[in-house]
Amino acid sequence: MSPRLDPGPPPTAAGVPAHSLRADRPRLAALYREVRAESIARAAPLSPEDQCVQSMPDASPTKWHLAHTTWFFEALLLQPHAPGYMGFDDRFFYLFNSYYEALGPRHPRPQRGLLSRPPLADVHAYRIHVDQAMLALIAEADDGVWATVRPLLELGLHHEQQHQELLLTDVLHLLSCNPMLPAYCGKPAVPATVPTGPARWLPHAGGVVAIGHSGDGFAFDNEGPRHEVLLRPFAIADRLVTCGDFARFIAAGGYRRPGLWLSAGWDAVQAGGWRAPAYWVPPGDPRLPAEALHADAAPEGWHVYGPHGLLPLDPQAPVQQLSFFEAAAYAEWAGARLPTEAEWEAACGLPGFEQGFGVAWQWTRSSYDPYPGFRPAAGAVAEYNGKFMVGQIVLRGSSLATPRGHARPSYRNFFPPAARWQFSGLRLAKDL
Amino acid sequence: MSPRLDPGPPPTAAGVPAHSLRADRPRLAALYREVRAESIARAAPLSPEDQCVQSMPDASPTKWHLAHTTWFFEALLLQPHAPGYMGFDDRFFYLFNSYYEALGPRHPRPQRGLLSRPPLADVHAYRIHVDQAMLALIAEADDGVWATVRPLLELGLHHEQQHQELLLTDVLHLLSCNPMLPAYCGKPAVPATVPTGPARWLPHAGGVVAIGHSGDGFAFDNEGPRHEVLLRPFAIADRLVTCGDFARFIAAGGYRRPGLWLSAGWDAVQAGGWRAPAYWVPPGDPRLPAEALHADAAPEGWHVYGPHGLLPLDPQAPVQQLSFFEAAAYAEWAGARLPTEAEWEAACGLPGFEQGFGVAWQWTRSSYDPYPGFRPAAGAVAEYNGKFMVGQIVLRGSSLATPRGHARPSYRNFFPPAARWQFSGLRLAKDL
Amino acid sequence: MSPRLDPGPPPTAAGVPAHSLRADRPRLAALYREVRAESIARAAPLSPEDQCVQSMPDASPTKWHLAHTTWFFEALLLQPHAPGYMGFDDRFFYLFNSYYEALGPRHPRPQRGLLSRPPLADVHAYRIHVDQAMLALIAEADDGVWATVRPLLELGLHHEQQHQELLLTDVLHLLSCNPMLPAYCGKPAVPATVPTGPARWLPHAGGVVAIGHSGDGFAFDNEGPRHEVLLRPFAIADRLVTCGDFARFIAAGGYRRPGLWLSAGWDAVQAGGWRAPAYWVPPGDPRLPAEALHADAAPEGWHVYGPHGLLPLDPQAPVQQLSFFEAAAYAEWAGARLPTEAEWEAACGLPGFEQGFGVAWQWTRSSYDPYPGFRPAAGAVAEYNGKFMVGQIVLRGSSLATPRGHARPSYRNFFPPAARWQFSGLRLAKDL
Amino acid sequence: MSPRLDPGPPPTAAGVPAHSLRADRPRLAALYREVRAESIARAAPLSPEDQCVQSMPDASPTKWHLAHTTWFFEALLLQPHAPGYMGFDDRFFYLFNSYYEALGPRHPRPQRGLLSRPPLADVHAYRIHVDQAMLALIAEADDGVWATVRPLLELGLHHEQQHQELLLTDVLHLLSCNPMLPAYCGKPAVPATVPTGPARWLPHAGGVVAIGHSGDGFAFDNEGPRHEVLLRPFAIADRLVTCGDFARFIAAGGYRRPGLWLSAGWDAVQAGGWRAPAYWVPPGDPRLPAEALHADAAPEGWHVYGPHGLLPLDPQAPVQQLSFFEAAAYAEWAGARLPTEAEWEAACGLPGFEQGFGVAWQWTRSSYDPYPGFRPAAGAVAEYNGKFMVGQIVLRGSSLATPRGHARPSYRNFFPPAARWQFSGLRLAKDL
Repeated sequence: MSPRLDPGPPPTAAGVPAHSLRADRPRLAALYREVRAESIARAAPLSPEDQCVQSMPDASPTKWHLAHTTWFFEALLLQPHAPGYMGFDDRFFYLFNSYYEALGPRHPRPQRGLLSRPPLADVHAYRIHVDQAMLALIAEADDGVWATVRPLLELGLHHEQQHQELLLTDVLHLLSCNPMLPAYCGKPAVPATVPTGPARWLPHAGGVVAIGHSGDGFAFDNEGPRHEVLLRPFAIADRLVTCGDFARFIAAGGYRRPGLWLSAGWDAVQAGGWRAPAYWVPPGDPRLPAEALHADAAPEGWHVYGPHGLLPLDPQAPVQQLSFFEAAAYAEWAGARLPTEAEWEAACGLPGFEQGFGVAWQWTRSSYDPYPGFRPAAGAVAEYNGKFMVGQIVLRGSSLATPRGHARPSYRNFFPPAARWQFSGLRLAKDL
Repeated sequence: MSPRLDPGPPPTAAGVPAHSLRADRPRLAALYREVRAESIARAAPLSPEDQCVQSMPDASPTKWHLAHTTWFFEALLLQPHAPGYMGFDDRFFYLFNSYYEALGPRHPRPQRGLLSRPPLADVHAYRIHVDQAMLALIAEADDGVWATVRPLLELGLHHEQQHQELLLTDVLHLLSCNPMLPAYCGKPAVPATVPTGPARWLPHAGGVVAIGHSGDGFAFDNEGPRHEVLLRPFAIADRLVTCGDFARFIAAGGYRRPGLWLSAGWDAVQAGGWRAPAYWVPPGDPRLPAEALHADAAPEGWHVYGPHGLLPLDPQAPVQQLSFFEAAAYAEWAGARLPTEAEWEAACGLPGFEQGFGVAWQWTRSSYDPYPGFRPAAGAVAEYNGKFMVGQIVLRGSSLATPRGHARPSYRNFFPPAARWQFSGLRLAKDL
Repeated sequence: MSPRLDPGPPPTAAGVPAHSLRADRPRLAALYREVRAESIARAAPLSPEDQCVQSMPDASPTKWHLAHTTWFFEALLLQPHAPGYMGFDDRFFYLFNSYYEALGPRHPRPQRGLLSRPPLADVHAYRIHVDQAMLALIAEADDGVWATVRPLLELGLHHEQQHQELLLTDVLHLLSCNPMLPAYCGKPAVPATVPTGPARWLPHAGGVVAIGHSGDGFAFDNEGPRHEVLLRPFAIADRLVTCGDFARFIAAGGYRRPGLWLSAGWDAVQAGGWRAPAYWVPPGDPRLPAEALHADAAPEGWHVYGPHGLLPLDPQAPVQQLSFFEAAAYAEWAGARLPTEAEWEAACGLPGFEQGFGVAWQWTRSSYDPYPGFRPAAGAVAEYNGKFMVGQIVLRGSSLATPRGHARPSYRNFFPPAARWQFSGLRLAKDL
Repeated sequence: MSPRLDPGPPPTAAGVPAHSLRADRPRLAALYREVRAESIARAAPLSPEDQCVQSMPDASPTKWHLAHTTWFFEALLLQPHAPGYMGFDDRFFYLFNSYYEALGPRHPRPQRGLLSRPPLADVHAYRIHVDQAMLALIAEADDGVWATVRPLLELGLHHEQQHQELLLTDVLHLLSCNPMLPAYCGKPAVPATVPTGPARWLPHAGGVVAIGHSGDGFAFDNEGPRHEVLLRPFAIADRLVTCGDFARFIAAGGYRRPGLWLSAGWDAVQAGGWRAPAYWVPPGDPRLPAEALHADAAPEGWHVYGPHGLLPLDPQAPVQQLSFFEAAAYAEWAGARLPTEAEWEAACGLPGFEQGFGVAWQWTRSSYDPYPGFRPAAGAVAEYNGKFMVGQIVLRGSSLATPRGHARPSYRNFFPPAARWQFSGLRLAKDL
């Protein structure tokens, strides 16, 4: 999900009868309003300063996310397809391009955080300007233009949803760098936990299974083409690995035993001084609240930082902010392995398969390679996805930060194996 | 001036009669108000976002400058000497320490820009909280306490003035990184230029001269002890090198001729891709305003970025944002040399010596070594100055960014030889 | 092949009748002598200085290869299994371990080139010492020990063969860094080229095919378990891409068109200033021989550095010293793609499939992931292979530097996608 | 001494009567032979491998030193002034230039260790070739040529002597990186120690003193012009700080107390993990000989690596392999300071001033700035010295590695403040 943006043209537009395309406009206008409002809602708890700062080259400021998702509609829909559209500010075209080589030079990614100007208020005005033009385009485009614009619109909305998740993970990384560990938002009424018993193995008989997007509804180009693969019999855990599970791995010396790790993972452990998942805070850390430093606080007790601030570790909660390297080492320690992405997709419909979506992305044991027959889509929007298919690992499912309606079984999220600022955890698998 | 903070206890307090000390309180209270107000005034043109971002490890955010100068009064005056003083927020003690090893751990310098929290409003409240306590301390301290506090107060005010200059140069660096090159403030009514004729040489006969602070008024510890040095006869230019002068150096291939450069300077030219002073923008640069890109704009014309934004190069204006390396290469090209700091100080009272103060700091050919007999002052405030006396070059004079009342002939500013985001220029010298 | 060393216990030992094991000893003793002699033969053209220097952290000195392969027999066979074996020098155990965490600390890889001591003569003596002990062990071990030792012996020999290829590619990298571009050995009697006509497409119908090692003869653990995969119909080129082909890619701007490259590949092009394969020397380069700089030399003519020194580009020779990124960009430009490793293995037995082995390793479009059911072997020798299964790309076939008898269809070589000092080229594929 | 090479033309040639110049030839021919032989003698204990490897970018291989000093005579004397001289190998002109921008491009310094070719034997042949031509030139040049050549010859010999010291310190650094810590040569018959009593202070009254080279005999251009400086009264220690002294500094927590260090020094301590001088080996280190690891070995006992290998610390020996930062921190801890270079030069003739030469270079508290009136000499040989006058610290005296006849009171050696692979120690001073 990270550096990527824009998939190819969605397959849904082709062959849809014109009248249904027309009838679709009010629905899409409403969806446009809804998706765009969600970005604003996610930024609402944040000050202009919070929205401006970039905490590392891999993360982008909130303000940049708000502007870039708007730029996408301007650059790919309004400028080519809305006659008479007046751009909001020519300089934004340079500032808020992400990585489209075909669309000209752009502001360097590691310097996004230096953009104290334009101020947030201008970005808000930019959003309103583009929203008005977009809604007019949706309402007024003639049918020929609409047939072209509609798939791009759908793509732009999914693109914005991807950035909504990144907006949250990126700002959480920023706040996690602050010694005061401020909360992004208030505490939830009911904490999210998982069933308390041991995980159960769900068997799958293997054989030929079809994976990839089937053709109904939107999907990114990297989810296709749908194709058959041959699986060996395997079993997959019915639930995610929990913080309690992972604390036992740490207590067993997991971060000190090179034999459990991939070679590059062990290098990362040593270079980064890793001792626990990214947002875990050990006993005795000066950032802990005073009461947690008292003598009667359990000396072995971890705290975990998250959107609601720093809280005592919940042993039932799924472990998150894990790199692939840590997920793989845990699986090795547990005498199991990570599932391949094909196994995950084949198993996610099994009865008892819990927590597939909405909790934490799940690292697989699959490198992010193209599916057989994959070809990137044409045009500027389609420059990509394919170009990131090296050196990354596939994650499946979705997380608590994924916008509603954005997840599906065929979704291929991906990050480098050392990335650990996402809501990323794991689920075990084993051969049968 | 950069990483430094606090000089030792000023020599002025010793031996001042008690009644004059007492009478001094209203003056110092007024001065306190005035200096503190100047910091706020310098931040006034900036948004909260501008004040939060850090553009490079060597520069600090405006918000940090505002808080750190306040921390200085809290940590070094109020906490030790104001009975019953209640700190504003304990965490600020960690966040806004700069480099005082003796005062405990501190937030890493390169991460100052990650502090989106505390918000700017909290820093303003912090300033008010400390100001009230400071004014009460000035008014109410008994005479014994006052004798201790008074030199620290004076030190704190000079310390804040140093940061006022840095606040401006640091935020200007930030804005210079923005492709829109926004102005810090509006255009001046009358641009500052220098006399148009050629520079004249002012001769000095050399001999034994006394340099260093003489004992009247405030000075930092590195300005002393006053001592005699033996100078050879020399001549010094009556004015600073101008942008017009420097443009001729560039046109003569100055940045392409290794023979003009110190070895480390030539390395810096190549590693940094230097082609001109830091804030010069070449013809054809996409950041230029549209009219400057027109065919009728002089093709050889440079623009220069500064507090008032991007303006056409003024050939009479002093060149600034120069590294020592560039200053030394220019002097070599001009068949001259830089003055030593002793020569500069001996010459700055000569009739006809212009532009000594208030225009641009002037690189000397002196490494920043301790004066004979120098010993750092005692206590926490005195941990320093001395500890930066290696690898830096002395600059003399003061700049347009230096607060009123902060400059004097004995002042020793210093920066590493490659630094070029200051208001730093040069004046030539030669042997006689 | 690079950082890896030692696969798991070969599957061949299990179930082999004891008498055939016994009868095998003379053959293995002869093979031992032959393989060991080949290492010495490869080092023969090199001076002690050539054999000592390390040209980059990824490459090792020849002397280190000679010692490390010997260490392998000492550490894994003689010390555990040869009663009364006296080590040659205890310090070698530390110096010549490669990456076996289980076998204790070791000399850091990037500092292998600092070992001017022990001198080469001592390493030769070390080899003789170990050879004598090994030949005695082969001849005299009782049957129980032999059953244990025999698979380790076979492994040690294949391990040494891997290092023989690396010895050659590593020293060639060293010599390529020398401005004099010295030859490793004299010119071959007959240059190796490929058929001159255009490549032909060999079709494959796809379907379920079995890949991986079948169980006869030696194989590394990463080649198993043998398993079935489902392939779509595809076609694969009958021959490798040639230098002539690749020169056309360069002439067509291949290294200047970001749209042809994976994102990380484009970053590598820019960061490394890549303009051609690693050992290509452009017209006008000062390292060219004087006659090649003459006016009548073809101005567009490339030279290529290789074991025989710098020679004019042979358009029929297979292109080598390519990174995966360059191979993938070429395939994109050619309107084709790289084969997956399963496709390569399925196709390599097709009639007309030329140049599969002994010319150049062939980059595939497969990340180096574990096969279904893969588990690393047990014990120290088996710590590995698996631990490198992330961030690398599979190459298939073998090269002119691969020792005789070391190649097979199931062999999985692997390197990071940016590596380009190997004899690595490509063969095209496409969907049908 | 490090990156520098070549001083300007020696002042001695001017004004010397022609007949004495002529009479000088046999003496200089003998001196040439003697100096050249000393380089070979210093390399004699080393294998070709020892002479080829480069242990860090700041150090050069022995073979390179042998070739570069030869190149100096070829490039600056033979090619311009010996009619009909035939170069040994044109490529050497590129390979063995050090940093003369005026003499064209050159092999990059950090890659000197990659030159396994030319082999050492060729460098020996190169030396003989040049020696023959040089001796012929000395004998046969007509008087006009000789007047030009003679000062360059003298310069070339002093240049070679500088490299003789570097040859030794550089190869010792290489051997110090080898876990076996091999000795450069056998143990000395009588170890070098210093008087056992406490150091005494030698007072100096200060006043106007002349420093710099006086005009008799050879000197580098940076030693002049001779000039007067005004000194305050001071005292200087009669002897160097010993290893015993320094061990007490370490035992007192010297490497753990930031208050003793310059700021950049404390950064270096932390970044480099410094705990003792560069070649000290702590108790328990696995590189210690077995007997030193025995229970009865003094647990607090340090060993020190040097030309004779690893020996138990001699408390009376002068401490060496110190950076300026460590020297300055020691002085601070001892309640003293380092002398300035002018103080050192003024004091070195005082009765009782011991160990000034031939033991260890002595860090001063003076940055390496130009003397008043300094101008680099003209021509290629004179491009330099001056160009290194920034960011370095002056050392005075000479060391056990300095060739006989190369030291004098006005000699200004210099290294960056963090350099610690030289025979560099310290002597204390204080104000009176």
